[in-house]
Amino acid sequence: MKDSRFLFQQIVRKRSFLCIGLDPDLTKIPKSFLQSKTALTDYCKLVIDNTHDLAIAYKLNLAFFECYGANGWDQFEDLVKYIPSECLVIADAKRADIGNTSAMYAKYYFERANVDALTLHPYMGIDSLEPFSNYKDKWLIILALTSNFGAKDFEMLQVQADKQYLYEHVLQKFRDCAFSEQIMFVVGATHPAHFINVRKQVPDHFLLVPGIGEQGGDLIQTMENGANSTGGLIINVGRKILFPTAGDDHAFQIRNAALAYQEIMGKFIDQQAYSVS
Amino acid sequence: MKDSRFLFQQIVRKRSFLCIGLDPDLTKIPKSFLQSKTALTDYCKLVIDNTHDLAIAYKLNLAFFECYGANGWDQFEDLVKYIPSECLVIADAKRADIGNTSAMYAKYYFERANVDALTLHPYMGIDSLEPFSNYKDKWLIILALTSNFGAKDFEMLQVQADKQYLYEHVLQKFRDCAFSEQIMFVVGATHPAHFINVRKQVPDHFLLVPGIGEQGGDLIQTMENGANSTGGLIINVGRKILFPTAGDDHAFQIRNAALAYQEIMGKFIDQQAYSVS
Repeated sequence: MKDSRFLFQQIVRKRSFLCIGLDPDLTKIPKSFLQSKTALTDYCKLVIDNTHDLAIAYKLNLAFFECYGANGWDQFEDLVKYIPSECLVIADAKRADIGNTSAMYAKYYFERANVDALTLHPYMGIDSLEPFSNYKDKWLIILALTSNFGAKDFEMLQVQADKQYLYEHVLQKFRDCAFSEQIMFVVGATHPAHFINVRKQVPDHFLLVPGIGEQGGDLIQTMENGANSTGGLIINVGRKILFPTAGDDHAFQIRNAALAYQEIMGKFIDQQAYSVS
Repeated sequence: MKDSRFLFQQIVRKRSFLCIGLDPDLTKIPKSFLQSKTALTDYCKLVIDNTHDLAIAYKLNLAFFECYGANGWDQFEDLVKYIPSECLVIADAKRADIGNTSAMYAKYYFERANVDALTLHPYMGIDSLEPFSNYKDKWLIILALTSNFGAKDFEMLQVQADKQYLYEHVLQKFRDCAFSEQIMFVVGATHPAHFINVRKQVPDHFLLVPGIGEQGGDLIQTMENGANSTGGLIINVGRKILFPTAGDDHAFQIRNAALAYQEIMGKFIDQQAYSVS
């Protein structure tokens, strides 16, 4: 398993919390790629080739593959196999259903596609995610406080019993459940003040952080409020690395965009006096 | 669009609220089907052939197709096309993500696969589901109170502001949003007492009701507490119709299982003095 110790080692070795979000949007991929029947993966492979020493994880956004039916799914599975083994492979599919159905989703992602981690909706409760936890070497990444504006609609509702936010209840319930050790949480960088709350509830868990880049979250503040003594952060950047500019030298520009994020992360990590025992 | 008036007409004409859940589990499909590369759809087509005059809707559970990768997705798309046009086609995929990602899911389900309705997680809030509402002739079916035990974990948490349950807030928010007319809600038959609450919040909306059959919900009580003056119910039965017994005459047994549910529904509908104006 790519466990928390393994991830911490990668963070220290690469001086990076960087996860690159692979959301291959055909309307943004350079036109020279579009003749191929495998344009989604061709472009993503170019990204991987030029960033795998800077990133500790890749997050594949399933909507951008599912959209193309069978061909999209073949490309998704092919791309998973292409990612170097030292990088965590996250399927960002945001699934969850009743038990017998979740078991089928788990079977697909953790057996056939064989990703390391899968994002999941918490709304239906603990039993809806239990079947995923039967794969003991896999990560369940549960939505807590998402990066979008609508997070205020339900995630930030205060609960009667203790006046805490719904997202804090999600953190607590899954922190205290039987498969807590397999769990990470999604916390958006667009809510920097809430990272303090989050770390009170789950000081030790890894957080997957979207919202940096196009969505405007503050990277330094995220690291200051979110990092813990064993790393604890996987920070996703999608569009800003995937589609950096309109220029022609794609490989160069993608690498430079990733490097800009990694360098800021590296400086922060250097200051932490991390030691991988 | 298969709008609420169209659905009401089908309910009255067929004397049925029945939705058949197509969850084609290869471990339960008769062995004679398993040689085919299209076993999932072959079996589901047998079900449809023998029930389409009794059912107003079919609900395709995506996990059972996704599990088989590209071949599963081809079968899903083929099966959607096979369903008679007077039946509502529901993709039970339980998707939802930030805006640009939800837009890709919407594009797949409402353009390429061209289903009539899609199930969605509410957790991320209104803006996460807005892109689906851009397809004005399609239904968004939002999880409110699900049929599983874990519904108590978050859906039944009481909210500080008004002591109402989280699921009631979900009903209110989407009832009052700009695309309310395209919305149905999932309410599980395993919580009969809560149907009264639900109908206080959303007297006019259609409810998709899982939990009858294998999960043990009470059909009569569901109809008594859930039906409204224009029908208002789509009641799903999955495994009890799909895999009725271990016998050999599959078509006969499937039809009989569906008929048993439809007859109970028909008697209830006869008593309502429904009139389709």
